[in-house]
Order: sequence, then C-alpha cells, then structure tokens
Amino acid sequence: MGQLTSENLTVLFLSVGVILATARIGAELVQRFGQPSVLGEILAGILLGPTCLGVIAPEWFRFLFPREGVTPAVLEGFNTIGLAMFLLVAGLEVDLSTIWRQGRAAMSVGVAGIALPFGFGLAAGIVAPRQFGMAPDSDPFTFTFFLATALSISALPVIAKTLMDLNLYRTDLGMVVIAASVFNDLIGWIVFAIVLGMMKTNSAASALSISTTIVLTLAFAIVLLTAGRWAIHRSLPFIQAHTSWPGGVMGFALALTLLGAAFTQWVGVHAIFGAFLVGVAVGDSPHLRERTRMTMHHFISFIFAPLFFGSIGLSVDFGKNFDPLLCTLVLALACVGKVFGCAIGARLGGMARAEAWATGFAMNARGAMEIILGLLALQRGVIDERMFVALVVMAIGTSMLSGPMMRLVLRLERPVRLASLLNARTFVRQLAATDRMDAIRELCASLTAVGLDRDTVEQAVLERESVMPTGIGNRVAVPHARVEGLASPLAAVGLSEQGIDFDAPDGDRAQIIFVILTPRHDDGAQVKVLADIARTFAHPKVLDDLLNVQSFTEFLATLKTHRHAEGE
Amino acid sequence: MGQLTSENLTVLFLSVGVILATARIGAELVQRFGQPSVLGEILAGILLGPTCLGVIAPEWFRFLFPREGVTPAVLEGFNTIGLAMFLLVAGLEVDLSTIWRQGRAAMSVGVAGIALPFGFGLAAGIVAPRQFGMAPDSDPFTFTFFLATALSISALPVIAKTLMDLNLYRTDLGMVVIAASVFNDLIGWIVFAIVLGMMKTNSAASALSISTTIVLTLAFAIVLLTAGRWAIHRSLPFIQAHTSWPGGVMGFALALTLLGAAFTQWVGVHAIFGAFLVGVAVGDSPHLRERTRMTMHHFISFIFAPLFFGSIGLSVDFGKNFDPLLCTLVLALACVGKVFGCAIGARLGGMARAEAWATGFAMNARGAMEIILGLLALQRGVIDERMFVALVVMAIGTSMLSGPMMRLVLRLERPVRLASLLNARTFVRQLAATDRMDAIRELCASLTAVGLDRDTVEQAVLERESVMPTGIGNRVAVPHARVEGLASPLAAVGLSEQGIDFDAPDGDRAQIIFVILTPRHDDGAQVKVLADIARTFAHPKVLDDLLNVQSFTEFLATLKTHRHAEGE
Repeated sequence: MGQLTSENLTVLFLSVGVILATARIGAELVQRFGQPSVLGEILAGILLGPTCLGVIAPEWFRFLFPREGVTPAVLEGFNTIGLAMFLLVAGLEVDLSTIWRQGRAAMSVGVAGIALPFGFGLAAGIVAPRQFGMAPDSDPFTFTFFLATALSISALPVIAKTLMDLNLYRTDLGMVVIAASVFNDLIGWIVFAIVLGMMKTNSAASALSISTTIVLTLAFAIVLLTAGRWAIHRSLPFIQAHTSWPGGVMGFALALTLLGAAFTQWVGVHAIFGAFLVGVAVGDSPHLRERTRMTMHHFISFIFAPLFFGSIGLSVDFGKNFDPLLCTLVLALACVGKVFGCAIGARLGGMARAEAWATGFAMNARGAMEIILGLLALQRGVIDERMFVALVVMAIGTSMLSGPMMRLVLRLERPVRLASLLNARTFVRQLAATDRMDAIRELCASLTAVGLDRDTVEQAVLERESVMPTGIGNRVAVPHARVEGLASPLAAVGLSEQGIDFDAPDGDRAQIIFVILTPRHDDGAQVKVLADIARTFAHPKVLDDLLNVQSFTEFLATLKTHRHAEGE
Repeated sequence: MGQLTSENLTVLFLSVGVILATARIGAELVQRFGQPSVLGEILAGILLGPTCLGVIAPEWFRFLFPREGVTPAVLEGFNTIGLAMFLLVAGLEVDLSTIWRQGRAAMSVGVAGIALPFGFGLAAGIVAPRQFGMAPDSDPFTFTFFLATALSISALPVIAKTLMDLNLYRTDLGMVVIAASVFNDLIGWIVFAIVLGMMKTNSAASALSISTTIVLTLAFAIVLLTAGRWAIHRSLPFIQAHTSWPGGVMGFALALTLLGAAFTQWVGVHAIFGAFLVGVAVGDSPHLRERTRMTMHHFISFIFAPLFFGSIGLSVDFGKNFDPLLCTLVLALACVGKVFGCAIGARLGGMARAEAWATGFAMNARGAMEIILGLLALQRGVIDERMFVALVVMAIGTSMLSGPMMRLVLRLERPVRLASLLNARTFVRQLAATDRMDAIRELCASLTAVGLDRDTVEQAVLERESVMPTGIGNRVAVPHARVEGLASPLAAVGLSEQGIDFDAPDGDRAQIIFVILTPRHDDGAQVKVLADIARTFAHPKVLDDLLNVQSFTEFLATLKTHRHAEGE
C-alpha cells in the first residue's frame, strides 16, 4: 500500500462520485420517457467527457479525469471489475432450460436471427470495410468477422426489461423471445470470443497461439456449462446450509466470476466472457435464492453499471467522431438484418404475422452488450472512433425502438398505473368528511384543481355510489365514474384516520378513499385501475404505513417502495 | 481506457478473486467458533501475504501480488473505495437519537470510556514512545496523540453484532452500550481526524495548513450532522417517490459518500472520515428503508470488506514484525483502560456491578476500526510495522474477548438454536410410520445412531406423548422428553408427505415431526427449543419448501435462508 498520493485519492473519489451521481440522474431522467437506463448513463458520460465538459471547462475536465499518472489506470481497473460483475448479472438472467421448453419456434428465431445479420455483416465487411470504420492498420479478415458479430448479437437484459414493461414476459411470445435471445447470446458470445482471439494485437498479446485460444475457449464454455454447472448446483445447498447468508453464496458467486474472468483473459479472449458464463452456470441452479440474486442485481446494476457506462463517454469525443452517414448505415443494416431475420425465423417456427414482427423488434435491441463489444474492438485497434460512436448510436437506437415498435405491431395499450394518476393537488392528507357522500364531495373538489367541472364529476360519482357502495374491503374504498370528454384516467386520494363507512363486505371502515374518473368510452381503463388498487392493498401493512405519511411525496414513496419490496 | 495490458487484467482478476475467496472462507471458519469475521479475513491475508505464501512460494506470491507497475495501485484504489463504502455502512448503523434516549448512563460510560484509555495512551506515549513502536522519524507529539486515540476508539459494528449474538441488543444494557459507543465513535473519529491532520507527511501533503484542516473538519462534521442530516431526511421521500427503487436511494447514498470522502481527503484528513459521517447522516433518517440498507450492507460487508481486510495481510510481514512483548503491552493497556474506564462510568451512571463490567467488556471490542486507524498511521509513517502488528493483535484480541467475558460476568447460557441440534443421521426424509406412536419409534431409532439407549428414550417420549399429544398446529408436532444423563439437547426430525395425526388444535395432520430430548435438570432448554420451532414454522411457506428437499443439507439450507429472509 501507499502507491497513491493523497491527491490521487481525492481525484479518484471525486471523479467516481461525480460519474456515479451524473449517470444515475441521467438514467432516471431517460427512464421517465420509457427509455433504457443505459442511454441516460452514456449521455451523462458524454456530458462529463471531452464532448461537452472538455470543451466548456477544459481545466476542470483535465483535473477530474486526468489522462496521465495512476488515476486513469485505477479507474479503468475499477470499471473492468465492475464490468465483469455486470456480465455476471447478465448471465444470471439466462435460463438454459427455456431454450428446450420453447423448442422449434425459439430455435428457428434464434438461428435465423443470427444468420441474416451475420451474413449482412460479412457482406458489408468484404465490400466496404473502410466505409464501415475499419481502423487503418487492422486486419480486414478480423474486422469483417467483428462486424458480422456486432450486427448479430442481442442484449438479453434490455429485452427482458422491455418484455416486463409491456407485461409480455410470461406470455408465450415472451418466452419464445427470451429463449431465442438466450440462444442468440450464447452463440453470439462464443463467436465473439473467437473473434477476440483473432483480434490479438501487441498490446493485448497472450502467450498462446490463436488456435490454442479458440480450443481453450470452447473447452471452457463446454466444461463450465456441463460439469461446472452440475458442481455449482450441488454446492449451493451446502454453502447455504453451512455459511452466513447471503454472504456465503455471494462471495462464492463473485469469487468464481473473478476467477473465470481471469482464466478467459489469460486465454486471450476478454475477461467478460468468463464472467458471463459463470453467471449462466450459477443462475441456472434453482437453489440460488431470489433474495441473493436481487442483492447482487441491485448493487451491480445500480452502482457498477452506471460507473462503467458513464465512463464510456469519457474516453471518446462523441461530437468530433459523429458521422451521420455511418450511423444511419449501421443502424439500418442492423435493424433490417435482425428484424427480418427474426421475423422470418418466427414465421417458419409457426408464429402469427403480428407476433413474428413483434419478435423481430424485441430481438433487435442491442443495449449494453453492443457497447461493450464495440469498446473492446476500439481498444484492440480493430475499429476507429467513428465506428465506435456509430455502434453506440445503433445500440441505443435499436433499444429505444424496441418497446414502441412492439406496442405498435401488437396494438398494445399503455398499462395504467395507479401512481401515475395521482398528483399533489388531488391528495387530501386528512379528510374532514365523516360520511361517504361528503368524502366524495371533498375529493371531487380537489379534482377541480386540475380543470374539471366540479358539478358534472360530483354528480356522476355520487350517482354511481348510490347504486352500490364502493367499499372493497381491506379499509379501501374506490368511488368511481366514467366522464365524458376526459382524455385519460384521473384520480384523487384521501386518507381518513377514523375511517368512513363505505359498506365494505368485510365491515371495516375505509381509511383510504380513491375517486377514479375514466374516459367514457374506455372500458379497459377502469377495470385496470381498480385491479391495480386491489393488488396494492392486498397486504394491510401498506395502508398502515400510508396512514403515517406527512406529504404527497412521502405517500408516493411509500406506495412505490412497497410495490417493489414485494418483488414487482 | 487502455492503460492496462491484458496481463495486468489477468493478474488483477486473479488476485482479487483469490483474496475474496480466501477471505470469505477464513471469515466463515472463524465464525464457526463464534469469532468476528474480520479475524478470519485478516488471517486469510496473512496466509496469502509475505508471512506465509511469500515464504513458501515466493514466485507465486510475486506473480499474484506484484509490487511494481500499475497493478498494486489499482488494487489499492479499489480497496480504498471499498473502505469508504464500509465506513458508510458502519455510519448507517449509528443512531444519534439513542444517545439522548439513554441519557446519563450512556453519557458517563461514553466519557469515562474515552477519558481513561486516552489518558493511558498519553502517558505511555510520553514515557516510552520508542517501546510503543513510534516510527524513527515520526513527531513524538503526533505519535502520542495517535496512541491515545488508538486506545480509546471502539468498534460499533462489532459491538452491535456481539450484543445481537447474546440476545442483549434490545435490552436496557444493550441500548446503553450502543448509545455510549455511538458517542465514543463520534468523538473518537473527530479526534482522530484532527490527529490525521497533524500526521501530514510529505507523501500525504495537502495544500492546507493544520489549523485550516482542523477548522474545516469540524465545520464539515457540524454542518453534515445538522443541516446536512435535515436536507437528506427531506430528500429521501422525494427520491423514493420519483426514482427507481432501490437504485435511486443507493446511488444517492453512495455518490454522497464518495463526494464526502473526496472532501475530507482534500481537507487533509482521510476519506473514510467523510464516508463515515455521510453514513451517520443518511442512516439517521427513518425514511431509509430497511431493504435498501440491507442490500448495501450485504454487498459491502460480504464483498468489499473481505477484500479490504484480506489485503491488509499482504502489505505487512506478520511473522517478522510480531513482537510478543509489545503485543501484550498494547493489549493489556487497551483492555485495562477501556474496561475499567467504562465500568467506572457505568457505576457512576447508576448501573449494577455485573452490568457495569459487562458494559466495559462490550465497549472494549476494537474490531475493524482499530485496524483501519493503524493502517493509516503506518502509511503516514507515524508508527512502525511492529506496532501495526500489535494494534491488529489488540483489535482482534479485544473483539474475541468481548462475547465470552460478557457471558461470564452476566452468567448467560448459550442460546439454543434448532439448527444446531440436528444432524444428517437424525434426519428422516420420509417417515414410514402412519400413526404418531410409530413415528416416534422411528425417530427414536435414528437417535440411537448418536449413542443413546433406544428403549429409555423411546419409553420417555411415548410416556410424555400419552399424557397429552404434541401437535402444535401449522402441521408441526414436537414429541419430547427429559432424559437422565444427557449433556446437551438433541433432536431428530422426520418429514411425512401424507401427514400424521398428532391431535393438533387446528386439526391439521403433522407433516414435520421433531423428537426433542433435553437434559433432565435443564428447565430452560426445552422451552427454548420449542419456542424456536414455533417461531420458525409460523409461516406456512417454510414447511412447504422443506417438504421438497432431497437431503439433509438442503433441509438445513432451506431452514437457514428462510430464517434470514425474515430479517433475523
């Protein structure tokens, strides 16, 4: 110890803190618009990097992110370990058995979804390597194979997230897509590992020959996914029975990841390949507890991933190297190859037309994986910075398109979430009313704050209430009505310490009252909102906690953290 | 990027993986003997370091942990960030309000528990600085103050853990100890921050003068714990309401920690001071959800802490620098000062004699904090390596003594835990019996495998059963008896898919049957075991999962992970 001076440490803490804060804020902002968090993390890095901060305040930029001395090496080391952990988490999500369960459709989507873009990539690399950003002194053969792989890889974590957002994860379509992309990723990573073996330049030299590298890589993958997977599955109960929890299992998984990473790095492919395969092998065991998985997932996705993706913007000038033509070309080639390839595979596998297109757009998301791939190719001198920027744009573009395009071809409606209907002006901390009609009037009054005609609304809700009282039990009441001319659902919420009788089936007085207004002709919205409320309040603890809040912000915070604590 | 070669990365992954694996194994092994995990982590580091591996296989040692190049700097940077996160977690456990609630006793324990060892340290530093391991070119004034601080600091995380293990955490005694050590730690760290300001050597030079350092440090502490604490408390609901969970809060806490660390490092005290205070300020807010706290706690304590403490053994040769006389001297001085100081304070605060001694031994644990303190003093050239080793020995020695001495002075019995009574030979996966007397005979037969007389045992349990059936509901039955000549409680457990009627109050057939034998004269043991079983099976999910296990190891794993998942 003692290699780092006090100033080194100050800069290290400051730069890591600034990247983490900026990247997290970026991720939150883009998520508000339904975009993948990796987009926000990269944008944050671009803000902090040579593209923006480097131009606006070059001294600050050089102070925070020095190019010389030990600091950049320390940051790179930290990020590389973080990246290996991120790949562990990505691997944990891979469930090999889904491939077999989904059978024919998954297989044909997986194969066609690789073959077509891979062919496009080979053709483009042979016909026009320079136009596609081959680095001046790179080997054309390696470059062509890299381009083919880059176009055919997909990003399981982004795909899974998109399917969950659309409520499709547990449908047949969702399972085919997941199975196909598990297959796609496994093949893609093995091909990529081989390409990495070919990419060896002086700076990344390994003592082994290319053929040894390829043989060892394949052997590692096969042994880890068969004997290794079996051994891990057998070890987990022993570890859980005899070590502290969840520390024993987490330490085991992470140590294995680091050792796997060290092995593949030594072999001459990148560390991330070993980390990913260890993740697949560990995640496949049903003995791994959900809670352990979530602890690793949360810490790594919310801390290490933002640091890694945030740092990407630091190394490349995205302004200077932005080539609109190349970006368009790469994006178009990637989309056409993948979407058509998968859609054709899906049709051959027996899926309906709309589902086939949806599968294509789902599989098209490249997300984080493409960016990691591109970064390695850039570092090893296979592509130039223009092409790296184009790959980042393609990765983000395909991920952003995925959800909206699926929604379009499947004609899905946006899911209605209780929390999104509420706002501070329609929140009544303590209702003055003591009977249900007064309570409804009080809440309807708050709804006029958002521009509705009070009398119309009040009359509609009271009319509905008089037909049949709306206490649904668990101390919740949901007076509601359909209103002419409303564009989207709206709600007001009031709390009542002493409770108001809404004639609930369980006889309890309501302590939380929602007034819900839905558009006259939208049959689905009302049912969805009511179902969401019933689900939210199934556990009495939620309401107990809500009755203690001081403000609308606290109300929302309690509602949200409860929802997630129950694993939604 | 691109500062690290492929070989650097291989070595980095390998060394981090090896340290993590070894340190985790060490921690688990020492915990079996009721010792603090930090002991095992440090022993693991000594095994891997110059003390053992460096002697046995010097080439391996040099390959894994090179002294030159960027690798050691990267490892140090990683560990320093990990250390800051560890201090964040330590700070999160500090609850400022306990100090006020415990009032007089806590205050007098806190004050006397610092004053006496601090006085001892001053005296020792003035009288015999060389004998106490002052580095040759250190400033005697700084050294004396360091020694005084080192003797008076305590380790809240270790203390809290010991109290929990002894089931004393929520008692009056426990609360006084916690409050006193919160007070102790806050004062100790502020004094230490000032000492660090005095310690500035060339390599750790800051641009600021000593007085500026001290003023800024105090100002930082005061502002953070008043206005900062208030601002954080107000921000948390907003963050939880409007960002992803738990990523928003975790990102916020960690970014704040890193920025606080950067600030105090810049000021001229160490980064860990800022990290600790941010932890105190964040942890004090009741808005911080337990789940978020646990995610950070688990990942950091089980991953970053083993890496940091494991690395300590790498930097120092514990064999060459082990000075038995110095170790004994430091340990004795530390124990006498702290135990007497706290006990006197406790008596003055109105506590009974046995409790006063227990308080002294509880507060005596130095744990991880002392080691961090010593490492900084070593790095800054205030103490020599002999003294560093003595401080590590003292830290571990005081922590190891803490639990057993408290048990002794309070005459506590060891808590009885269900899991510790079971073993593979007394586990029957599927009972052949279909009625309760046969089931008891079957389980008693398995108990003879551990050397008991079958007839005596069987007769005693059947006799008890015939007086009153032992079905306790929730599909659990607990036939039991007291047996002459038994040294400690014993149990056998059997599962029954179809269930056996044990005449339970809820009418359900028992699917899990425990036969429990306790020593004839131990009244407490039987009640404790039965209570532990009732608590364990309060939730039906546990039993459902247990019915699916294949082996005793899986049985134990399921029992353990359920217990912890419910927050015990």
